[in-house]
Amino acid sequence: MSVRPGTVVSTWTMDCFAGRVRSTSDLVSEVCDPRFLNPQTGPFYVEGAEPGDTLAVHFRSITPREAQGVSTTVPLFGSLTATHFTAMLHEPLPERTWVYAIDTAAGVVRYDALDSPYQVDLPLDPMHGTVGVAPALGEVRSSLTPGDWGGNMDTPEMRAGTTCYLGVNVEGAMFSLGDGHARQGEGETCGVAVECAMDTVLVLDLIKGAPPTPWPRLEDDVFIMTTGSARPLEDAFRIAHSELVRWVCELTGLSSMDAYQLVSQTALTPVANVVDTSYTVVAKMAKTYLKGATVMSGMHGRLREP
Amino acid sequence: MSVRPGTVVSTWTMDCFAGRVRSTSDLVSEVCDPRFLNPQTGPFYVEGAEPGDTLAVHFRSITPREAQGVSTTVPLFGSLTATHFTAMLHEPLPERTWVYAIDTAAGVVRYDALDSPYQVDLPLDPMHGTVGVAPALGEVRSSLTPGDWGGNMDTPEMRAGTTCYLGVNVEGAMFSLGDGHARQGEGETCGVAVECAMDTVLVLDLIKGAPPTPWPRLEDDVFIMTTGSARPLEDAFRIAHSELVRWVCELTGLSSMDAYQLVSQTALTPVANVVDTSYTVVAKMAKTYLKGATVMSGMHGRLREP
Amino acid sequence: MSVRPGTVVSTWTMDCFAGRVRSTSDLVSEVCDPRFLNPQTGPFYVEGAEPGDTLAVHFRSITPREAQGVSTTVPLFGSLTATHFTAMLHEPLPERTWVYAIDTAAGVVRYDALDSPYQVDLPLDPMHGTVGVAPALGEVRSSLTPGDWGGNMDTPEMRAGTTCYLGVNVEGAMFSLGDGHARQGEGETCGVAVECAMDTVLVLDLIKGAPPTPWPRLEDDVFIMTTGSARPLEDAFRIAHSELVRWVCELTGLSSMDAYQLVSQTALTPVANVVDTSYTVVAKMAKTYLKGATVMSGMHGRLREP
Amino acid sequence: MSVRPGTVVSTWTMDCFAGRVRSTSDLVSEVCDPRFLNPQTGPFYVEGAEPGDTLAVHFRSITPREAQGVSTTVPLFGSLTATHFTAMLHEPLPERTWVYAIDTAAGVVRYDALDSPYQVDLPLDPMHGTVGVAPALGEVRSSLTPGDWGGNMDTPEMRAGTTCYLGVNVEGAMFSLGDGHARQGEGETCGVAVECAMDTVLVLDLIKGAPPTPWPRLEDDVFIMTTGSARPLEDAFRIAHSELVRWVCELTGLSSMDAYQLVSQTALTPVANVVDTSYTVVAKMAKTYLKGATVMSGMHGRLREP
Repeated sequence: MSVRPGTVVSTWTMDCFAGRVRSTSDLVSEVCDPRFLNPQTGPFYVEGAEPGDTLAVHFRSITPREAQGVSTTVPLFGSLTATHFTAMLHEPLPERTWVYAIDTAAGVVRYDALDSPYQVDLPLDPMHGTVGVAPALGEVRSSLTPGDWGGNMDTPEMRAGTTCYLGVNVEGAMFSLGDGHARQGEGETCGVAVECAMDTVLVLDLIKGAPPTPWPRLEDDVFIMTTGSARPLEDAFRIAHSELVRWVCELTGLSSMDAYQLVSQTALTPVANVVDTSYTVVAKMAKTYLKGATVMSGMHGRLREP
Repeated sequence: MSVRPGTVVSTWTMDCFAGRVRSTSDLVSEVCDPRFLNPQTGPFYVEGAEPGDTLAVHFRSITPREAQGVSTTVPLFGSLTATHFTAMLHEPLPERTWVYAIDTAAGVVRYDALDSPYQVDLPLDPMHGTVGVAPALGEVRSSLTPGDWGGNMDTPEMRAGTTCYLGVNVEGAMFSLGDGHARQGEGETCGVAVECAMDTVLVLDLIKGAPPTPWPRLEDDVFIMTTGSARPLEDAFRIAHSELVRWVCELTGLSSMDAYQLVSQTALTPVANVVDTSYTVVAKMAKTYLKGATVMSGMHGRLREP
Repeated sequence: MSVRPGTVVSTWTMDCFAGRVRSTSDLVSEVCDPRFLNPQTGPFYVEGAEPGDTLAVHFRSITPREAQGVSTTVPLFGSLTATHFTAMLHEPLPERTWVYAIDTAAGVVRYDALDSPYQVDLPLDPMHGTVGVAPALGEVRSSLTPGDWGGNMDTPEMRAGTTCYLGVNVEGAMFSLGDGHARQGEGETCGVAVECAMDTVLVLDLIKGAPPTPWPRLEDDVFIMTTGSARPLEDAFRIAHSELVRWVCELTGLSSMDAYQLVSQTALTPVANVVDTSYTVVAKMAKTYLKGATVMSGMHGRLREP
Repeated sequence: MSVRPGTVVSTWTMDCFAGRVRSTSDLVSEVCDPRFLNPQTGPFYVEGAEPGDTLAVHFRSITPREAQGVSTTVPLFGSLTATHFTAMLHEPLPERTWVYAIDTAAGVVRYDALDSPYQVDLPLDPMHGTVGVAPALGEVRSSLTPGDWGGNMDTPEMRAGTTCYLGVNVEGAMFSLGDGHARQGEGETCGVAVECAMDTVLVLDLIKGAPPTPWPRLEDDVFIMTTGSARPLEDAFRIAHSELVRWVCELTGLSSMDAYQLVSQTALTPVANVVDTSYTVVAKMAKTYLKGATVMSGMHGRLREP
């Protein structure tokens, strides 16, 4: 599908299991085909997008399509288990499925324990785990992987009200999204959030003639944010923080060492995921410290709802 | 100095440079002796403390002693530079010193760039970078290192209003603290916060006969928090999150897999430091999700100011 | 090109710079296009190869095509420098090119220093850095990356006399190779070996109906070898060693704990590369400890030259 | 005990379990006190040793004192298991003990499987896992930890015929050694080698007025070797290789970039341990490439037996 810059797109996404996990008795290893995990909506061909441009994606709304979401454990996947990469001699942890009732009106999702009657309501906070463009160098990457093209970053910051900036690698950018989460903890510890299909309204726009965007950046009304996706986790941190230093230099005219200092005293650093093939860290700085600098040509202010 | 459990202690700490860095022309490598970096106040011998007990340290107030703080870069130290461990062939980054005016009444510290006239006020948010007890196994560790005994964790969560829980390894616990920061970003990117001497009021108390505290834990009015200190950074994450899973099990009676799931959807995970000899990650869960469970015998509620 | 199992293939490969670096004044960043680095020969479609099979690749001979090879530094690439992933604020290290005279008859390559008259002959030990099949899950990966499909593992063990076993992911396996090295140190420290075009004779064969080969394995007359490619480097170690434990179990009938013990006392563990997008570690065990077990249906013995 | 430089010392060391593990039914967690694991022989006060000097330790002979050695698994310790740092939700792997018959005359140790009748002889190759001096900065470190003072490096290179060079941090150096291994694989995968008490003859000597030795170095008749101990494992690699580059510069007069290149093509990089609190990597270069440079004032040649 081809879209013009500035277009408002109303779309929807399947959940990461393509809808195959419906009840606590559905186990991922039994009902899902690993080749078709995390289906994406797209790609959208953005007219006029060329390598070196920056694609802006502003999320107007992200709304669960159904009254339930699911989370699971998956054998040899997650941050507190041996995995195919952190290879060990342990048996996999038990495979389980949790079902969350989603009450969109009340703004809550209900956690329901499997082994005891414990129930507790958690705030609904819908987001997309996977948001990206086509990678560089002709690669085709699994939607389970995050990188400099975006992809499966799994940060709760990717919520309605946020604008995501992605560097364009190929003509048309080839934007796609998916992996809706009704909510997610920072780190996505067990590897799976509260997964659900989403109705999403977003605006796609294009920034041309500006410095390139080497790693995905985000902006909301309060913060600018950078991301880094790599292993080990300190490299994800290093990418996010060096990108924040670089961006602050561009926005304020500060020298590199002065920006390093300012970032050191002001950055917030929420971990995004420690489970995917690369781990993701977000670095955030309040825009008040930028003293009125114009971020990305003022794109966020134009795309956000009035 | 020997203190009885329940005692309110009014003390003070030197800054991490022992007061030797006073102006932008003072460079750490010229004015400091590496053997005497990060001096601590203590140790305090806590009467009755025995291995297996948990020491509770509640911070009533942490107040800068002077009207200025300093930050610096230090050759081969920090997260965006080659170091003695992440050894590379680069020359060290430039060594610089920044001086911050601290206005305690207004609650701000003033960032003042070195290479351009940029100035901006940041919120004052005083904390202690180094809080700990004597390590186990007869080790004597540098105050530059964090670990399961606490030490140089460098988390901004260690502020007034927070209670820190430390497992006791030796008779008397041998508590010490230092490394006051007027404020600090998450990650302490360049390796040095806004360093200053502090006047600190704290209460020390003892929890006996409860499950041990293998890694430092924190509690404030809203959150329980765990910490992990290790390299690579994902191991610090794994420690903090597995400790949070374990603690939630203790507090709620949830099974391990159910607690893993609840933590996965609710944890906040701010990075503490990615610069010290071990890196530190904090995992936080709102106490509302614990449904009224009593944390550490209600210690935080008793020690906080009425 | 389509080949039948058992076929002897005589082929050649370009060097990793596609021949564009010829003298000490040719710098990679000036003469090479990053999209066309590390060109491969292939893919070869192996008749009858299906997912789950194992492809055997025996190297009969690997011979430099020319009388010189080159090595270089590349900005922000290598193990003792900041990189795009281990992101730092340093300027890149200097970009340099070294030219090695190759004397195939004498079996030496000549190191010639750039900044002083130091010269020394090193043993010629030709190998292929990149050997692989098509990845699983429909991915298309850069030839700069190693993984469970093989690829840019950069181990000096991939020399004439060695058989490489690769798990087949797609019909026909789609085998390719390239990145010839006249020799290479373990770790490929600066990121670039003594690069040269190669004339290579190899035999391709197929193992069906045996346990799958989840990560590339190698065999020569003395050793069985496993590989792991991941970051951080300990995960590459964990993969290689857990694969060796698993393989020893298959070959000897030892229990998992007994094989873990035997591997612990007998494995050699040469690092392959600490520079590529994933790092590679090799684990080796002498076949004498296997007490005559038949490895991969005796494939190596059949494919090696009599 | 005080020794003069040049003294030949005949001593002995206990095994790492202080002799408490004697049969396959002795489990470490039942028979050992963690506070007394890995007892060392020493410290030896070396007369005249001052900070900045280098201590040379040449091993004349290392001989098992008894006809058996033991190896074990230890709960939450080892490279293919969750640990206290790589914290996970798995149950610990089974705890087991293997007993090896040592035949010093035949030069073999006999591996005897626990769960099947598999037996195989392995070459005897005695070494010391722990060799070190007192750390800097007033620290007291557990003998389970390696670092720039040496300590529990667990490299098979520490065998008879090797000279180990250690930078002196305190007056008298305070040398100690222990943790004898009848043999060990590279990586010490399960965390425990073939442990035994040793009779050891060594020579201690002192190098004054030379460049300092920031990390332990080794030399045998063929190779110079550097070590790095850190986490993640790539940092241990980076330390070892940057130390090798630095040492080659000192020995040959090559520029830093030229030495980086020579190391890249010639280094061997056997992993030492991936189990201790820091991991250790060794980098080796054949002395023939040094073109006759004199290493450490010719110390190795003087200390080795004629």
